This record gives sequence, structure tokens and C-alpha cells, in this order.
Amino acid sequence: MKHIHGGDVYHHQGCVDFSANCNPLGTPGKVRQAVADSLDELVNYPQVGYESLKKAIAQYEQVNKEQVICGNGAAELIYTLILALRPRQALVLAPTFAEYEQALENLGCRVDYYGLKRECSFQPQSDFFDRLTPQVDVVFLCNPNNPTGLLLEREFLERVLDICDKHQTMLVVDECFLDFVKEPKKYSLKEELSENPHLFLLKAFTKRYAMAGVRLGYGLCQNLDLLERMGRMTQPWNLSVIAQKAGIAALKEEDYVRRGRQIVFQEIERMKQEFQKLGIKTYDSQANYLFFEGPKDLWEKCLDKGILIRDCSNYTGLSKGYYRVAVKMPQENDRLLKALGELYL
Amino acid sequence: MKHIHGGDVYHHQGCVDFSANCNPLGTPGKVRQAVADSLDELVNYPQVGYESLKKAIAQYEQVNKEQVICGNGAAELIYTLILALRPRQALVLAPTFAEYEQALENLGCRVDYYGLKRECSFQPQSDFFDRLTPQVDVVFLCNPNNPTGLLLEREFLERVLDICDKHQTMLVVDECFLDFVKEPKKYSLKEELSENPHLFLLKAFTKRYAMAGVRLGYGLCQNLDLLERMGRMTQPWNLSVIAQKAGIAALKEEDYVRRGRQIVFQEIERMKQEFQKLGIKTYDSQANYLFFEGPKDLWEKCLDKGILIRDCSNYTGLSKGYYRVAVKMPQENDRLLKALGELYL
Repeated sequence: MKHIHGGDVYHHQGCVDFSANCNPLGTPGKVRQAVADSLDELVNYPQVGYESLKKAIAQYEQVNKEQVICGNGAAELIYTLILALRPRQALVLAPTFAEYEQALENLGCRVDYYGLKRECSFQPQSDFFDRLTPQVDVVFLCNPNNPTGLLLEREFLERVLDICDKHQTMLVVDECFLDFVKEPKKYSLKEELSENPHLFLLKAFTKRYAMAGVRLGYGLCQNLDLLERMGRMTQPWNLSVIAQKAGIAALKEEDYVRRGRQIVFQEIERMKQEFQKLGIKTYDSQANYLFFEGPKDLWEKCLDKGILIRDCSNYTGLSKGYYRVAVKMPQENDRLLKALGELYL
Repeated sequence: MKHIHGGDVYHHQGCVDFSANCNPLGTPGKVRQAVADSLDELVNYPQVGYESLKKAIAQYEQVNKEQVICGNGAAELIYTLILALRPRQALVLAPTFAEYEQALENLGCRVDYYGLKRECSFQPQSDFFDRLTPQVDVVFLCNPNNPTGLLLEREFLERVLDICDKHQTMLVVDECFLDFVKEPKKYSLKEELSENPHLFLLKAFTKRYAMAGVRLGYGLCQNLDLLERMGRMTQPWNLSVIAQKAGIAALKEEDYVRRGRQIVFQEIERMKQEFQKLGIKTYDSQANYLFFEGPKDLWEKCLDKGILIRDCSNYTGLSKGYYRVAVKMPQENDRLLKALGELYL
């Protein structure tokens, strides 16, 4: 299952890609312009320490710039963080984004799984807290979770945070998809950062600005010693000139983000309704993608119709018959719904 | 000295940058075009395993594509290689490119230095071989060396290779600047790869195609197990969509490389002569940069004249009074020579 993820448009050219989850509006104009404007600067090494980008992110997030660390995509930060922490035992949800366990295992950490149960609608229960023993060095949570789209409640998160703080366990919360949730502030742990040196938040430009191909993500953390150690695990030029310029430009795209969110809110409701009409079991995703159950050959059947969906069977904790689709623009979603309608007739 | 390198045009805007050493012709047209053409693909995740780029590099280098590994710049590969090797003891030259020792130290490896002596014109002597004890897990060489521009002779390299093979020591040879040497084939160890699983060659797009800001480098190695372990130390999307497209485009720029080399060959001879006329002690660089000695305040004095040179005092093994300048286009070099002429009057 190594390195099998959504978004492989390269082996499925000409398909409508519902397997990767980005802002449905596509890469915004200011980002495209920034890339086009970078041509004369490609000759230069990127700025070590990416001072301007760091300032822009700090302003956007309303944090101190010392709390910001950037990566060549959020995925690089997962590796860098693990290298800096050198954990021996980790706890992750199952299913969740595969790159946490991949990175942990590759870097020699034992991974324990908390299995999310279908009968509990893939939500963690109170027995999760029992798994947070002092032996756990790092916990990865994803909020909303991937692939389910389900949110972890604030009370749950705060209790996890308390236990982690007591046990000196690092809590990593991946908030990459939180931008597409109706009330992100209610669920984000950003306000908790200043009090919690054992909290690390992962954020990405990839989804918010539909710029997966540029590679830019960031982390927020109050533990400056940890950030300094992370810096030492990475080459000094890990962010390209293009990524730095594109990132600064992206943060100015406020209206674009607002519009993308509105489309997601409207379309996911419509998709949930249409899926239900077709008798498809869906889960109550609050993100910009929809998790559902279907026949074991649905991925192939959709592909025949030129539609690439995410077969979730390679997620730890899932098996054949689970799928995820991105929420895209209304006309694209129409194509998906039409194809599913034909398949479910 | 951490993360202090040449090419910091950000703190010295408006200067002519002689502190980074790239093809004097600047970023070639096909690379610029590839970046400009990538706008519609920024929304996609990069291709995991970068199959097309890997094939193009394999064809360019006349090796099997299995022998190719790419990085977000060659600098990423230095870190990834050390993470995969987990060496306890390393041997590096002093002075040499600072990122080897930086990465080794950051990742917990003890670094032994072989000090290149001024009285031996900064060339290694036969006592180097005595330092290749079985306890050495990895050796980094840079050919031609940075910052001196001096070539390591083939006989020397082959003897090092023999000893490393006997001791199962990994030999890493950084050939990033070999493209600007008159007879690269005479010095490259590429032909030795197939027989030597303990040999790793580092190559970069950065210098050959003047595209430092894009971030793309590669390594060649016959040890497929090592390459596989390196892959596990890295996120699956470490090469941006832009870097993959730009890399493929760059490899087609054969005439550009030929022209860049000719300019370097002509200009470095001229610069050596002019430096000598000014009474500046230079070393016999065979690369696209010139290493020389000068007064302790030369960096500041050049900066006053709008010229950024590389103060080499932070290289291990050097002190104040050593400098490096890139070989640029004739008119730019004229500016440097004029400034030095005024300073040395």
C-alpha cells in the first residue's frame, strides 16, 4: 500500500479526478500569476528561512512568525517532525491519512492503531483515552478526518490535549481540511497553541488553494526548540522560489476561499441527498469530500465512465467497498451523479 | 555557520551575484516555458515516482532508470542518503561544500575532516588514503571541489573507490560542477557505477541549467536496496509538478549547455589572467568559479560596489581572506574586474 494515494491523474488521463480533495475553484489567479512571474527568479537559490512567506503566514494565522515552520508540502513536515521527535511508539486512528503511519514506520517508530468502528460511525469513543498511555510518544489526529470527513469534537480534542500534556506526548493535529468546515474556529486548536508546547498543528496550501503541484505546507507550534530541531533535519532550501512566491500570493485570495467554501457547503448537501436517493450509504462528512459505501467493483465501473474516485480499501482499518469522492464544481458533480445514477439503476 | 551559503540575493538586492555558481547563460528558454506551461497542472499532485523525469534522466545519463533517484534539489538527497545509511563516522574534506558536514552532524554522525593544506595547493595528498579506515562509514568528495574548483585526479578517485569497496564504505562523489569542466568524462565515476554498489554520484540541474530556484537534483547508484531505503525516508511527493516538467525540458537544452561551457572556458582564463595582473593569488580552478585570496575586508568592499562575492571564511578549514566568485557573462565579469581593479589600485 506504500505511496498509494488519491490524485493519480497520470495513469488515468482524461478522467475527471474525484480522488484528490482540493478547493473546487482550481488554482486561483494570484497563484498562477505568481508562478508565471517567477521566471526571472528561477536562477536564484530560494531564500533560506523564507522570511517573507513566514511573515505572511504569521499574519494570516495571527500567530508569531517564530511559531511557523514551512515544508515542501505538509507531507515533508510529517517526516521532519518524526525525525526531530524520534518517537518509539505512536498512536494513530484507523482509518486516517496513510502518510502518518507510512512516515512513522519508515522512520522506525512502532505504530499502534485505534480502530474506528463502522458500528460507531467511524467516530472515536471514550476508550480512546485509555490508549493514551505514558508510553505513547506521539499521537496523530486528523480533523476533519480523512477519508471520513468526520469532525472530532472540541471536548474530545481538549481531553486528548490534557492527557498528552500530562504524559508529555506530542499531539499532532492535521487541520489541512478544516478550511472547508462550516465553523473552523470551533474545531481548531490554534488558540491552544500558546499554552501547549506538546501541540503541533499541520496546515496546507494544497487544499485551501488547490495547488498540490506546487508543494507548500506549514506547521504551527509553540515549542521553538522542536521547530529548531526540525529545521536541522531539513536542507536549507526546501521551499522553491516558486512555492515561496505562490504562498505569499495565495494568502491574499480571501474571496476565492470564501467562494470555494460556499460551493462546498451547497454541493456536499446536494450530493448527500442524491447519494441517499440512490440508496448509497454515506457518512456525515463536514469536509470537502464524501465517504460512502458501495459495491466492490465501483472504482472500476466509475473509471469506465471516465471518473476517478478514491478506492479506500488500502486504508488501514478499511476493506473493499469503501470510497471517497471530492466535492467539485456543480457541473463536475453532475457528471459523477449521472454516472452513479446509471450504475445504481 | 549553519545555513550560511552563497546566493543570498535577498539581503543584497540590486547586487550582481557572484556568490552562487550557475550556468552564466541564466535559466534556459525551455525551462522557463515549462514553468509557464505548468499553470493548469498546479492543481494536481505531482506524479509519485516521477516516471517520465526518471526516464529522461536515464536516457541523458545513459544509465538504467532504476539507478536514478531524484530530490528536491541535490541537497535533499544528501539528507536522505544519510538517513538511509545511518553512518556513525564520516570523512569529509576541509574545505568543501558545507552541506555534507551540516547534514551529517544534524543527523547524528561524527565527522572527521581531512584538512586540505594551503602549502599543498588545497589538493589531497597520499596520507588521505590512511584516513580511509574500516571505521569510516561514508566519505564525501566533491569533484571539482567547492570552493576551490580543483579536480580530483582519476587515479586518486579509483584508489579511494578500491579502499571504500574493500571496507564497505559508501563513497559519495558530488559531480554537480563537473558539467563545467573541459573533460568531464575523464573525471566522472559514472562508468564505475555498475561495478560498485558502494558508489553514489550526486548531480544537479541547479548549476547546469541555472535553475536553483526550482529545486531539482538527482543521484545515480547501482545499489537498488539503498535507493529503496532512501525512498522510504522521503515523502512520496517531494518533486513538484513544476520541477518534473522543468527537468524534462531542461535535458533537451543541449546547445545551451554547450554554449554555457564555452563561455566558462573562455571567461575563466581571462579572469585568471586579470586576477594575476592585479597580483591576486588565485588557484587553478577547472570549474565555473574562481577561488582566490584577498584582503580581509574584500567582501564588504565589493558589496559597496554592488558586487556580491562569496566570503569563504565560514568553510571548515578556511579563515578570513579566502573568496570565491562565479564565472558569469563577459559584461558581468567586466564589472567584477573593474571593481577589483579599483580596489587593488
